[in-house]
Amino acid sequence: MPSYQAPVRDMKFLLTDVLEIERYSNLEGFADAPPDVLDAVLEGSATFCEEVLAPLNAVGDRVGCVRHADGSVTTPPGFKEAYQQFVEAGWPTVGGDVNFGGQGLPHIVTLALNEMVSSANMAWGMYPGLSHGAYSAILAHGTDEQKATYLPKMVSGEWTGTMNLTEPHCGTDLGLLRTKAVPNGDGTYSITGQKIFISAGEHDMAENIVHLVIARIEGAPMGTKGISLFVVPKFLVNADGSLGERNPVACGNLEEKMGIHGNATCVMNYDGAKGWLVGTEGKGLNAMFVMMNEARLGVALQGLSQSEVAYQNAAAYAKDRIQGRSLSGVKNPEGAADPIIVHPDVRRMLLETRAFNEGARAFLFWTALYGDLLHKSPDAATREKADDYMGLMTPVLKGYLTDKGFSNAVQAQQVFGGHGYVEEWGMSQFVRDARIAMIYEGANGVQALDLVGRKLAANGGRGVRTFMAEIDAFLADNAGDANLEPFCIGLKTARDQLEQGTMWLMSNGLSNFDNAGAASTDYMHLFGLTAFALMWAMMAKAAYARVGGGDPFYDNKIKVGRFFVDRMLPETAAHLAKMQAGADTMMAMPADAF
Amino acid sequence: MPSYQAPVRDMKFLLTDVLEIERYSNLEGFADAPPDVLDAVLEGSATFCEEVLAPLNAVGDRVGCVRHADGSVTTPPGFKEAYQQFVEAGWPTVGGDVNFGGQGLPHIVTLALNEMVSSANMAWGMYPGLSHGAYSAILAHGTDEQKATYLPKMVSGEWTGTMNLTEPHCGTDLGLLRTKAVPNGDGTYSITGQKIFISAGEHDMAENIVHLVIARIEGAPMGTKGISLFVVPKFLVNADGSLGERNPVACGNLEEKMGIHGNATCVMNYDGAKGWLVGTEGKGLNAMFVMMNEARLGVALQGLSQSEVAYQNAAAYAKDRIQGRSLSGVKNPEGAADPIIVHPDVRRMLLETRAFNEGARAFLFWTALYGDLLHKSPDAATREKADDYMGLMTPVLKGYLTDKGFSNAVQAQQVFGGHGYVEEWGMSQFVRDARIAMIYEGANGVQALDLVGRKLAANGGRGVRTFMAEIDAFLADNAGDANLEPFCIGLKTARDQLEQGTMWLMSNGLSNFDNAGAASTDYMHLFGLTAFALMWAMMAKAAYARVGGGDPFYDNKIKVGRFFVDRMLPETAAHLAKMQAGADTMMAMPADAF
Repeated sequence: MPSYQAPVRDMKFLLTDVLEIERYSNLEGFADAPPDVLDAVLEGSATFCEEVLAPLNAVGDRVGCVRHADGSVTTPPGFKEAYQQFVEAGWPTVGGDVNFGGQGLPHIVTLALNEMVSSANMAWGMYPGLSHGAYSAILAHGTDEQKATYLPKMVSGEWTGTMNLTEPHCGTDLGLLRTKAVPNGDGTYSITGQKIFISAGEHDMAENIVHLVIARIEGAPMGTKGISLFVVPKFLVNADGSLGERNPVACGNLEEKMGIHGNATCVMNYDGAKGWLVGTEGKGLNAMFVMMNEARLGVALQGLSQSEVAYQNAAAYAKDRIQGRSLSGVKNPEGAADPIIVHPDVRRMLLETRAFNEGARAFLFWTALYGDLLHKSPDAATREKADDYMGLMTPVLKGYLTDKGFSNAVQAQQVFGGHGYVEEWGMSQFVRDARIAMIYEGANGVQALDLVGRKLAANGGRGVRTFMAEIDAFLADNAGDANLEPFCIGLKTARDQLEQGTMWLMSNGLSNFDNAGAASTDYMHLFGLTAFALMWAMMAKAAYARVGGGDPFYDNKIKVGRFFVDRMLPETAAHLAKMQAGADTMMAMPADAF
Repeated sequence: MPSYQAPVRDMKFLLTDVLEIERYSNLEGFADAPPDVLDAVLEGSATFCEEVLAPLNAVGDRVGCVRHADGSVTTPPGFKEAYQQFVEAGWPTVGGDVNFGGQGLPHIVTLALNEMVSSANMAWGMYPGLSHGAYSAILAHGTDEQKATYLPKMVSGEWTGTMNLTEPHCGTDLGLLRTKAVPNGDGTYSITGQKIFISAGEHDMAENIVHLVIARIEGAPMGTKGISLFVVPKFLVNADGSLGERNPVACGNLEEKMGIHGNATCVMNYDGAKGWLVGTEGKGLNAMFVMMNEARLGVALQGLSQSEVAYQNAAAYAKDRIQGRSLSGVKNPEGAADPIIVHPDVRRMLLETRAFNEGARAFLFWTALYGDLLHKSPDAATREKADDYMGLMTPVLKGYLTDKGFSNAVQAQQVFGGHGYVEEWGMSQFVRDARIAMIYEGANGVQALDLVGRKLAANGGRGVRTFMAEIDAFLADNAGDANLEPFCIGLKTARDQLEQGTMWLMSNGLSNFDNAGAASTDYMHLFGLTAFALMWAMMAKAAYARVGGGDPFYDNKIKVGRFFVDRMLPETAAHLAKMQAGADTMMAMPADAF
């Protein structure tokens, strides 16, 4: 049975040593998160995730969710009780708005908690995870009345939320959607249609479920401009806040999936359900993107989360499993064989995974800090930079972290040999669960296209120029530091290749959009690797400043970082070469020849 | 529900146009496979695989195998009947020795059939597949009496066979095994011990199962030198060939696995079962490697097989699924959207998979031809080259083809978006089934180590030098061919990088074995890519010689090949760079810091 220990030490290293968040104690919320509070929050959450959620992960996979004839859904044994504990302990309130019962701590703190939840039990974590997206959409676009009706219960966790976008014939291309909203004449709408792949669409963990649904108001134009967003509660809410009658929205089926069996993935049937417009008519996609961008970062976090827990279990197995002898001489002479961690190729699999995990965590935390600065910084230039970065980094994080998160889970499973393939050992579940993150909230190919087709060009390419300038400033600041030299050389090479890739896109992607599409996934990975190179240089700098005090943490951090630079970063050149090959060989063959 | 069409056209192209097997019609068996016979065999097998085996693939996954209280095992509905048809049609006899009822056709023909079987239903294909390894071991090392007892029924398929190597505490390191063989005084042995992960160890498809088991004869030394091989039938065989009493060997449990649910993966308990020594006492590993090498090529084929069937279904989906519009202008103006195959990134996923499939098939067929030449060529130099190649290419094929076969199945699943994650669509099964091929018959890290630590150095590196010389000869022969120029440039670059990698291993791997281990997986992939570059150059040459007759097959072949050279081959440089980084950063961290 796999286990999980939350990487609290690594999180604190990022928050205090690398990102130095105490610099921002003048900002709203940050003042409420001094080191001692931070410690208490991280450690309390770690205990809950390790002791309550992680032990439920395997049963969630094995038993899954069950839909009953009346459309109700039972979650796996223990899920409901764990959620109750979670709510009672106040965990959902940590990052919530203080006006609606939240503690208002920085988003970066919530991110740390979410990573732990997702590593411990990804399927369970999606119930509160999706609530947060729905909460954010109402917070950003809802009326005061809608906020007062829904937000306090969503912040407390008593109610959960969902996002209802996909329909059987349309996923990526939401302009095709058919769900319709007919005005009832009293300001409400009657929503009818079918939505699919609705995570946490129906369950038994909360007393109400707040569905956010995109639909087309009767008579609205086809395409994305005809789309509006609605809030459609499972139970209507009375004026006094109590629950009223059941809205005609029901789970018609549960999907049988490769993984995340503990999460109810529902077909949702809206049969004249009562809904309220959120935001402006016809601007549903804008409002939806508030949820979507948040959800994308949450999914990026899932990529990291499965890679992290898979690594931990693989490392433990590699230290324990006795098989064969070291190539460089016996290491365990008393035993019949050496532990397999003596083998370089086993270490390669572990280190690729670990170097990813630590780099990904840094990249996520660094981005989340900009998310906080975007809303809270008093400085307009900082807010502009933060806005640019959030736009630019979101598809990179979602695409790169989930591609690698999955392949790392596979790699960690490989360390177990045949036992990795047997369900009992739990590694298969990490792989099967991690797989979905590459697909939902916009498949990774869509992320790559969003990056090259939209985010890169926004504001004349200001975001990527700012990012280059930030790298250049780091390189200039640390030019004389012999310790950091290998990190800086790697970062410089990657940065130059990213620049060449960007220039190639500008020269070739605008004249032939297929060139941009053909280059998109390689560019996304090139971007991810370059961002990791900056993260590792920053972490190495922070670690070198503290190394030598007898604590091996900093020394190990530097060693893992050197592995990243030597053995993972060289992939940038291949991505650039592939991009530069252009679209011609990709588009040459007629469609019917496939 | 996924479908499968056997790539008969592509197989014929390889056999007749690329490898020109009619050149070998002077050799035993080849004369029996003229074009019309070959066509009949390939097309007959294709029909069986498409119509009988493929429709059973999903049910095999869903229902799986069931073990009953008495240790008997029921295979999924339809499996037994399909096997009966398979035997009645004589398919198992195609490559079998003519002295034991086989048709004696070249191994390369069997390979083609096996690919079809494995694409149609990988789990089902393992029942006859493992029989063949057991058959080969008895054929190579058995006594005349053993051959007469077992081989006719194994060739006909009436009996199946298994390989029993792994024990709970030892997989890769067989020197640790504990199963013991006690002489009964009458030339037979009494075998006692537990074996795990025994594919097809017990089932209801054949009347007898012939287990080949490695064990330690009482008093034999520890380590690999004390290992002997035994044949242990499920039912003892009477002198007249009829079945006698049940041997005390039984299935104690079935593993619950990530995939290949249709194959019974058994814990086998030997409780004083009667066995007969196969080959020489203490030379069990040698005899076992006959099975093992054959099994490794069979597993390489599984990597291709899942990538092939996953590609076919993804290509069909991409041409059918309407979503979004082409970046370069509407392609389907009558429809609400364009089929997703208009998107470069969707084509990238499909073409990477297809270019792999066609390259892998060529590489396997090319190697299988050497397998035939090894046994049948009258020319000593040809036999030596064939022997070198079989040794050298087996780990590359097993490791590279299964790593890529799995990642391609994942990529094909990705084309389906959310539907790829839902079991009903069948893409998840291809991914889950393909995953095992990276693990069993020697995990891919073990293949990589076998390549750099043993196969590369054999006979002073003669094999890799011969391979380089073969590439050089191709380049020299085609130096003036403008059509082939891009293929030759790609091949030359890859060849030079493989040479640099080989030189680096010689200079650094012998002085520090950890350098060899640290480089091994990257070297294996570099080798695989280079071999593919040769295969694509050979295929392009054969296609250019035939292009222009109105048949788009050859033109498409060249286009897929150009995609390989432009967009996949550039990965060689990254593998070389990673190798050259050496083992230091990999070995620096103490084991307890993982």
